[in-house]
Amino acid sequence: MTRRQITGFSNPTIKAVRALREKKHRKREGRFLAEGLRLLTDARECGRLPELLLMAEAREAHPLLDALEVAVAAAGGDVIEMPEELLAKVTGKDNPQAVAGVFAEWDTRLEALDRNRAPLWLVAQAMRDPGNLGTMLRTADAVGAGGVILLDDCADPFSVEAVRASMGAVFTVPLAQARWDDFLGWLRAGEGQLVAASLREAVPYRGAPYAAPCFVMVGNESRGLPEEYEMACDLRVTMPMKGRADSLNAAVAAAVLAYEVLAALGD
Amino acid sequence: MTRRQITGFSNPTIKAVRALREKKHRKREGRFLAEGLRLLTDARECGRLPELLLMAEAREAHPLLDALEVAVAAAGGDVIEMPEELLAKVTGKDNPQAVAGVFAEWDTRLEALDRNRAPLWLVAQAMRDPGNLGTMLRTADAVGAGGVILLDDCADPFSVEAVRASMGAVFTVPLAQARWDDFLGWLRAGEGQLVAASLREAVPYRGAPYAAPCFVMVGNESRGLPEEYEMACDLRVTMPMKGRADSLNAAVAAAVLAYEVLAALGD
Repeated sequence: MTRRQITGFSNPTIKAVRALREKKHRKREGRFLAEGLRLLTDARECGRLPELLLMAEAREAHPLLDALEVAVAAAGGDVIEMPEELLAKVTGKDNPQAVAGVFAEWDTRLEALDRNRAPLWLVAQAMRDPGNLGTMLRTADAVGAGGVILLDDCADPFSVEAVRASMGAVFTVPLAQARWDDFLGWLRAGEGQLVAASLREAVPYRGAPYAAPCFVMVGNESRGLPEEYEMACDLRVTMPMKGRADSLNAAVAAAVLAYEVLAALGD
Repeated sequence: MTRRQITGFSNPTIKAVRALREKKHRKREGRFLAEGLRLLTDARECGRLPELLLMAEAREAHPLLDALEVAVAAAGGDVIEMPEELLAKVTGKDNPQAVAGVFAEWDTRLEALDRNRAPLWLVAQAMRDPGNLGTMLRTADAVGAGGVILLDDCADPFSVEAVRASMGAVFTVPLAQARWDDFLGWLRAGEGQLVAASLREAVPYRGAPYAAPCFVMVGNESRGLPEEYEMACDLRVTMPMKGRADSLNAAVAAAVLAYEVLAALGD
C-alpha cells in the first residue's frame, strides 16, 4: 500500500480539498469532505468509501483506521499523510480529528427513493441551518425513517457542518433534493400522507390519524412553511405551545412529530 | 430623551460591549449582549430591560423600537446610535439586526427556583454546544417548563449564540446553574422525580410512570450522562433507536422526552 506525504499548504491537492468547504466548489466537483474516524467508519460500513483519505502523521494506531486505509486502497483510492496542522487547515477545525475523507456525492433525485421501504419519512423545506439539517438526518436514522427529502433552498447536506451534525447519518439515511412542485407530483403518484405542524385547521398531534407511508414536513427556521404547502397536506397537527413563543426549533419539531408517528404506526 | 452618538470603533463603550462576546468578559462584568427587536421586545415584556440600548442610525421606524427606547430611558438606561457597520462589528454578525442591548445577568442559583411552579423541568449536564443550550431553553418555554437547570460545565447560556438560539426564552424561562452534588441535595430536599434516557435498567419512555414535579435530564453531547448520574435517577427510560446510531442530539432527546412527560402529566 502506498501513501503519499504532503507537507506544504500550497500543494494543489490540499488546495482542492480545502476548497470543498465552500458550496460552489462542492457543486462543481461533486465531492464533499467528512472528518473523524467514527464518521468514516460509519460510511465504510454503509459501503461509502472516500476517494481520498487524509491522515495526520502523528495519529494513534487504531484497528478501525487500519481497516479504513485498507478498504480505501483496495477500492483504488488515495491515501495521504500530512502534519496535523495542515489537516487542521484543511478541515477548518482547531482540534482536527486525525482523519478526514473526500467523498463523491451520490444521486439525490426523488426517483431513487422507494417510498415503501419505511412507514415514516422526514421532509424539510428551505431549512437554512446546516446544524439543524444534520440533526434531522440523525433523527431520521434514529426513528428508522425511509429517508430525508429536502425541498427548495435548503442548506447543503454535504457541508462540513451538516455532515458533522448528522453524526454519520448523511451516509446511512437516503436523501433526496427536490423543488416543491416536483415533490408533490412524485408524492401524489403513489401512496403517501403528507403531515405538517400547523395552526390552520389542525388536530392535536397526539392521537392524530397518521398513515404509512407518512411524510412529516417542517419548514424554514424563520418563516415556517408557506401556506400553500400547509394546505396541500393531508393532515395538519398542532403541538402544545404553552409559553410565549409559538414555535419550536425546526429540527426539534420534526423529532417530536417523528417519534409520535413512530409510536402511532407501530415500532 | 437623550441619545448618544458613537461613530468610531475605538470608543471605550464599543470596546467594552464587543468584549462581551467572550465569556471571561461576561463573567467579569456580569453583563451580556442580545440582539434583535423581537428578542429585546420579549425581554421588555418579561421585565428585563437592557442597561444599554444600541441602535443602527439607518434603521426603519417601528413602534416596538420606540417602546423599547422609551422604556430603557425611563429606567435610567443609555441609548446609543451608531453606523450599521459599527453595530455589525459589535455583534459579530454580517447582517446585524438594527438593535442590540447590554443586559445585566441575574441570579441563577438553585435557591431562586420554586419547584412547585410547574410539573416539568429540564436539566442539562455538561451541555457544551450553545446552540443546543439555546434550543433547550426554547423547548422549555414551549412545554411550559418551570425552568432549565444547567449542571456542571455547560456552555454559557448568556453567550450570543445561546441567546440567539433561545429565541428569547433566555429571558422568559427561569434558569439555574449548579454542580451535580448541590443539585442532588436541593432536589432531594423536596419532591421531585429525576428522569433520564438510559440503557441501564430502563423502561420504555412511552407510558412510563412520570410524576410531577418531573425533572428531565440529558447529558453531554459526546459522553452522555455519567453512570453515577443515571443511577441516581428515579426513572430511566429508553427511546426507540432503530438506526445505526444509539443516540439523538441532546436538545432533540430533551424535547421528545419533555413532550411525552407533558402529555403524561396533563396539559
